[in-house]
Amino acid sequence: MANVLALASNRGPVTFEITPEGERRQRRGAGGLVTAVSGALREREGLWIASAISDEDRIVAAEGPVTAVLGETRLTVRLVSVPEKTYAAYYDGFSNRILWFVHHYLWDPPRTPRFTEADDEAWGAYQEVNRRFAEATAEAAPPSGVALIQDYHLALVPRYLRALRPDLAIGHFWHIPFAQPDYLGLLADEWSSGLLEGMLAADVLGFQTARWADNFLSCTRSIAGLRARNRTIAVDGRRVRAGVYPVGVNPGHLAEIAAEPAAGAARKELKSWLGDRRMVLRVDRAELSKNILRGLRAYELVLERRPDLRGRIVHLVLLQPSRRSVPEYREYTDACIAEAGRINERFGPEAVRLELADDFPRSLAAYSLYDVLVVNPVFDGMNLVAREGPSLNKRGGVLVLSRNAGAAVELAPAALLVNPVDVEKTARAISDALDMPLEDRRERARRLRRLARGRDPSRWIDAQLRDLERSRG
Amino acid sequence: MANVLALASNRGPVTFEITPEGERRQRRGAGGLVTAVSGALREREGLWIASAISDEDRIVAAEGPVTAVLGETRLTVRLVSVPEKTYAAYYDGFSNRILWFVHHYLWDPPRTPRFTEADDEAWGAYQEVNRRFAEATAEAAPPSGVALIQDYHLALVPRYLRALRPDLAIGHFWHIPFAQPDYLGLLADEWSSGLLEGMLAADVLGFQTARWADNFLSCTRSIAGLRARNRTIAVDGRRVRAGVYPVGVNPGHLAEIAAEPAAGAARKELKSWLGDRRMVLRVDRAELSKNILRGLRAYELVLERRPDLRGRIVHLVLLQPSRRSVPEYREYTDACIAEAGRINERFGPEAVRLELADDFPRSLAAYSLYDVLVVNPVFDGMNLVAREGPSLNKRGGVLVLSRNAGAAVELAPAALLVNPVDVEKTARAISDALDMPLEDRRERARRLRRLARGRDPSRWIDAQLRDLERSRG
Repeated sequence: MANVLALASNRGPVTFEITPEGERRQRRGAGGLVTAVSGALREREGLWIASAISDEDRIVAAEGPVTAVLGETRLTVRLVSVPEKTYAAYYDGFSNRILWFVHHYLWDPPRTPRFTEADDEAWGAYQEVNRRFAEATAEAAPPSGVALIQDYHLALVPRYLRALRPDLAIGHFWHIPFAQPDYLGLLADEWSSGLLEGMLAADVLGFQTARWADNFLSCTRSIAGLRARNRTIAVDGRRVRAGVYPVGVNPGHLAEIAAEPAAGAARKELKSWLGDRRMVLRVDRAELSKNILRGLRAYELVLERRPDLRGRIVHLVLLQPSRRSVPEYREYTDACIAEAGRINERFGPEAVRLELADDFPRSLAAYSLYDVLVVNPVFDGMNLVAREGPSLNKRGGVLVLSRNAGAAVELAPAALLVNPVDVEKTARAISDALDMPLEDRRERARRLRRLARGRDPSRWIDAQLRDLERSRG
Repeated sequence: MANVLALASNRGPVTFEITPEGERRQRRGAGGLVTAVSGALREREGLWIASAISDEDRIVAAEGPVTAVLGETRLTVRLVSVPEKTYAAYYDGFSNRILWFVHHYLWDPPRTPRFTEADDEAWGAYQEVNRRFAEATAEAAPPSGVALIQDYHLALVPRYLRALRPDLAIGHFWHIPFAQPDYLGLLADEWSSGLLEGMLAADVLGFQTARWADNFLSCTRSIAGLRARNRTIAVDGRRVRAGVYPVGVNPGHLAEIAAEPAAGAARKELKSWLGDRRMVLRVDRAELSKNILRGLRAYELVLERRPDLRGRIVHLVLLQPSRRSVPEYREYTDACIAEAGRINERFGPEAVRLELADDFPRSLAAYSLYDVLVVNPVFDGMNLVAREGPSLNKRGGVLVLSRNAGAAVELAPAALLVNPVDVEKTARAISDALDMPLEDRRERARRLRRLARGRDPSRWIDAQLRDLERSRG
């Protein structure tokens, strides 16, 4: 197994900033990937290629590779810096407004998408940044090394990288759902076939669940005319394997953060606010795929139909602001806030408490306190909240979970599964959860905790590396 | 082959009305199905079960079976009458607002659908009307006869009918697209599995193209856990075959209507209005799946980028009002009218001429005159406009055709295919069509006419009957 692992992801493990004292400081990057990967890097030399995002990142990028420290892990970080306009077109314009939308089924086809020349330019920027990532990876990766490319931002990197460095074993992991061909076909042809060609240049393609891997393979069949056998496709004289590697959480790492003072203070405050009321919790990015509006409506239906619960339950909605530069996100977040306000008008000022903040310790504190956790995304690659919550909960909390979240594959036996668009059934699941006898809830929560903790993030990387070694034959 | 053919469809071959003189009159029903089937019935005794829609229909229904005359064809019609509220819930509520939407990908998943109790009631009404159709068919069909059930309104009829009359050979034809499983899974579980079970009780299931048949089979695999082999599924000890039977048009019948005075007058009026300008034509129901908004925008882009064409081309948009009782349809139609108005504000009062009327002879007149016909549905089972237009056009007209219309399978070699959401490429296709040398256009139009006329509607029924006979073994 390779001793040096080259990782490429849009968001790096650290970001740089200038303190008020004028000194450069490293800050741990946000996002689930850093958590998932940092454990795996403890036993390997790591090289991480990521975008320069902050102003200071751009200065660091110009200076060359830099050493980053993550807990016990040291790794070399190379930041890829492109003009801000190019970055915005690649990141917001193409990755988030187009690829994210298509793979989560977020369009309204009679009206959206309506692609314009700006979208063609965004595709150009996407290609350019992917090429830059491939060049940076090609320069830094050791001979016959392994490169693991992350997610939908960098789907073209395998193709560019293979051309530059045919000696490397290349993996690509797709963290989000993969759309079925009718829907992917809504992209301009050049984009959908470019996406598939880019990915098919990897040796191993990783997906969160069999469902998304199979959707990818349906697309290669329908759009690129390539058939798979045992999830393996022969292309250009190579074999590409689509594997399933579900991402897990690191309960030890979560427990550490939950034990820090910030989480302790939040827990105390939330507990005193809660009193003897019961808590229905949501923790999410403020994101269209998360189905926050239907979640609020389902909670409202519970209050509507169960007068006995009014004043005795609260809905804590912790939303992390997301992609504020994309108009669809601002509108959606505003609609969620308005919906919460409307429910409070109707059922009292504390029926819903919606907080818009980026406060991970507070989320961990809330996890320990919920009676019901609502995770109802329309579509979701995995969803780590569904694993984090049950890992930390201490109240025999019940998980109401969308069957379209990747996490449902493993958590189904101990969760209440719902069709995310079915608000009636979601409301029923929430009230069923509240009505469940304590002993049943505790038993269910124990099983759920075991399932939720059952995926070690370092095994996630290990499994991919094994399959990459095998692909070398 | 059976001499009596029992057909069931929501809309019958005739509808009844009272003349100003107080007499009952039969009027030929609208819709492509009547056209497609009437030819096939010339050689068979026909029994047609359909919904009572007009007030007079309900009175006729109470009197029992009635004889209808369609050209040279005589058939027995039995009208199924249910209370108006039940009919509205079955027809608008479930068939058109739910089944039509899901199979054409017309939702905006972050926001719609949001099912309520009214939708559960609509599902109840849908079941009830389907049961009534099954009962009427069971009563009237001769022993060991053949029943052909039509379309998404009546997907449960095969199941109810098989229980009542196991001696019948049952076919079901699905006229519209069939969604892929991720999207169909947005229905409440009871509905999606009810739909699949209902259809799987037929002996032969018909689809317009292999694409929709395969989508259906993906759904039976993902949702009902049933795998197909050679498009055949074993279920309950029976074998169900999913076949492909593309619906065609009857050029002779079209030519007859086009030769009538109404069409002649319309042709004269349109020709004098047109003068020496060239015509870009659209003929459609005012329907969300038809992609009228993007079509108007594409035409606007042509005017924007080609000042030389301004004043020299016109866009005639003939929209047939559709489902005016469904709010989404009214809103969409209004948006189309507003968009046309906006373009005329910008490029002159005759840049777009949008007419909202139900006038088939006028559409046929327009077909003979277009230079470019735009048929760009987001998704469409077949689309008969794409066949009717080229069958009647006399100006070497070019067809710009969505690749998501079933008609694209056969017409592709002689049409300009577009991705329907790609407004840029659609605009380019329209201006390419206008720029094409006359000789090329004529040659292309000749090939297109041959392809468009190449499907005889009576062969459509014959092929299904053959496969049904074969299914009996």
